[in-house]
Amino acid sequence: MVRKRKLGRGVAVVGAGMSPFGMFRERDSKDLFVDAFRAMIESVDKGVDPGDIDALYIGNFTNDFFVHQSHWGAILADTLGLVPRPATRTEGACASSAIAFREGVFAIASGFYDMVLVGGVEDMSKRSTADVAEGLASAAVPYERKSGFTFPGVFGAIATAYFHKYGATREHLMDVTIKSHENAALNPRAQFRASIADIMESKVERAKAGGNPVPRWTDEKDFLRDPEANPPVAWPMHLFDCCPISDGAGCILLVGEEMARGFTDDPLYVAGLGQGSGRGLHAAPDLTSFEATRRAAREAYAMADLGPEDIQFAEVHDCFSIAEILHVEDLGFFGPGDGYRAAGEGATRLNGPKPINTSGGLKCKGHPVGATGIAQLIEVWEQLRQRAGTRQVPNGDLRLGAAHNLGGTGGTSTFTILERR
Amino acid sequence: MVRKRKLGRGVAVVGAGMSPFGMFRERDSKDLFVDAFRAMIESVDKGVDPGDIDALYIGNFTNDFFVHQSHWGAILADTLGLVPRPATRTEGACASSAIAFREGVFAIASGFYDMVLVGGVEDMSKRSTADVAEGLASAAVPYERKSGFTFPGVFGAIATAYFHKYGATREHLMDVTIKSHENAALNPRAQFRASIADIMESKVERAKAGGNPVPRWTDEKDFLRDPEANPPVAWPMHLFDCCPISDGAGCILLVGEEMARGFTDDPLYVAGLGQGSGRGLHAAPDLTSFEATRRAAREAYAMADLGPEDIQFAEVHDCFSIAEILHVEDLGFFGPGDGYRAAGEGATRLNGPKPINTSGGLKCKGHPVGATGIAQLIEVWEQLRQRAGTRQVPNGDLRLGAAHNLGGTGGTSTFTILERR
Repeated sequence: MVRKRKLGRGVAVVGAGMSPFGMFRERDSKDLFVDAFRAMIESVDKGVDPGDIDALYIGNFTNDFFVHQSHWGAILADTLGLVPRPATRTEGACASSAIAFREGVFAIASGFYDMVLVGGVEDMSKRSTADVAEGLASAAVPYERKSGFTFPGVFGAIATAYFHKYGATREHLMDVTIKSHENAALNPRAQFRASIADIMESKVERAKAGGNPVPRWTDEKDFLRDPEANPPVAWPMHLFDCCPISDGAGCILLVGEEMARGFTDDPLYVAGLGQGSGRGLHAAPDLTSFEATRRAAREAYAMADLGPEDIQFAEVHDCFSIAEILHVEDLGFFGPGDGYRAAGEGATRLNGPKPINTSGGLKCKGHPVGATGIAQLIEVWEQLRQRAGTRQVPNGDLRLGAAHNLGGTGGTSTFTILERR
Repeated sequence: MVRKRKLGRGVAVVGAGMSPFGMFRERDSKDLFVDAFRAMIESVDKGVDPGDIDALYIGNFTNDFFVHQSHWGAILADTLGLVPRPATRTEGACASSAIAFREGVFAIASGFYDMVLVGGVEDMSKRSTADVAEGLASAAVPYERKSGFTFPGVFGAIATAYFHKYGATREHLMDVTIKSHENAALNPRAQFRASIADIMESKVERAKAGGNPVPRWTDEKDFLRDPEANPPVAWPMHLFDCCPISDGAGCILLVGEEMARGFTDDPLYVAGLGQGSGRGLHAAPDLTSFEATRRAAREAYAMADLGPEDIQFAEVHDCFSIAEILHVEDLGFFGPGDGYRAAGEGATRLNGPKPINTSGGLKCKGHPVGATGIAQLIEVWEQLRQRAGTRQVPNGDLRLGAAHNLGGTGGTSTFTILERR
């Protein structure tokens, strides 16, 4: 049992904005964060003076490695003209900015600050894929790395264990991939704005235009089975099971609950907060479940007085297709071994009973690691406020959405429930 | 003016412990942190069950660079057997663990957690001095670094500006160095447990024993003027003006104020918290003062309803001798340009009216960067509780002590006031 925890002062989200996600050779962390900051400022319905921001929390994971620079709290406070306000960097691998969000909530709930900017940023595309793989692995998985694992290898092993335990196959992972691409096709800021059907069509067009043999696939799964179209990375993780290398940033404006309606008539409230730690694969009794995620979920549900059945939709950490399946089980949305069936039955699609990763997820929206946690919460913000455009969940009475963010191979996990009242 | 800020729930320190500081070739971050954790657990007068710890905050700066591993929140939670409790790493260059302390305070003050472990660790001695210099510079000073500065170079430039503005000389810096060594000689966990007089004597002994010419210095300053004994690093910073490369860890146990007397009859209370950011030297209108420090001090004094005259002693970030002089001015202990005179007049000595760096400071206690902020607060804890042994400030009624921690070239600064009631 996890103790029921409460905040002494409620905290509200009154603004949120992100840069497009993708590979931007000409834009560094500062450029990306300024894009997100401007979008956030514009999103505040009744306007906000950035000078009223009391403090900043910035999640970042890999800049130490990839651009050989840390101390990003201070650097971004300077970039935004917010010196001498306090600015703190948080790091929890790929969960770095969900943690920044949480620290911002605590800082306001403590009574110390009234308005806090929380954000995340990552700049990954300037390094080779091999460098990125080595950097991420070095950063997050001390024991796994010594065994030669990279992240696709880790999640390949996890998928194999899941297949063995529950009888799932690669065909089921494809259901997740197809859904992610369908959602991302509707997301103007996603890195891959194309369904699998779109991708098939463009490949056919290109073959025709080049006078090459025209590929013939019977349907999306037939395409994903084709080892030329979808080569293996670390079996059973194929190319279309893996999130891309991405650049991007996001930020969110938090204020004390009692102040929220001064900034918008439609604020969101922090209903549940949870975070847990885990030991990594080397010590996991079962590769098909993350202890840190289960702990984070219990903590957040207890605070919110809610259960998984109350959450109407969620962003879930799908760094690999198999990760989404595991996490929807660990979060209690589906029973153990039911996650892959839910995907196959369409339960997690945009128009299903429990839409998951309406943004396209890490797989297709992109995964600039330190920005991901905040970007997930931005998707929840847009969906709950009925502003998600063509990818809006078709339910006019959305009240509760959530975001789940994982760091490393389960070393850190967070779960955050937002509420529209 | 800085707004007066308050915590909704008071927070108390009920335990504190650190590893020895030094260069330990056989001990890594985990070893060092376990040493600190054990010392902390033993320090809790009425005992504590580590299982009651709700969450961890860990400050670390350079492990990404020097041991190519991040995600230290999760790793140390695992090391201490505290999985699945949430564990978060904070980073603000050399202020990384003062920030961890602050986040722990917010987490408890918010009402969410009751008992939080805050700590810091750094493992620096396994790399060459050149690697460390490059790593620290890369990490903290984006613009200065491009101009070829290392940290001794930055503080050399600052000292030169201070000399020019106020007429101070190297002779005045020596007053700081001599005091730091005197205090560290009394600190069993300091890296350099020797006064300058002790060092002179041992050099004379060694010369005699080796049959070499016996050096003759008239007094400590004569020794520090000798370029063979005290060579220049980046003028006017000589060897004895610079903190060493250090390994070490520290941790502190925080609880809600109303719980404190369940753990000790002599808890300390968080009276003032302040943090600020700064732009770095490239944008500083005046090299002899840090905007981030002034901001942190204003915030902490406002919260505590206190002024600098109320603080009975302090640990101050003396990464270089000149830094202590600047900071005692920025914190308001002495007027602008009076810091060097105060050192010369003995005002900052152990038996002076405003003892500064009774631990020996970063210069002599050691500066494992991510552990420094917590270690400063541990010194305040021991002094306020009258348990600092032979280096105890000779005032039986100590009530208010403070710690000031700087990150980078002023990108981050924190100031924390602890109170004994």
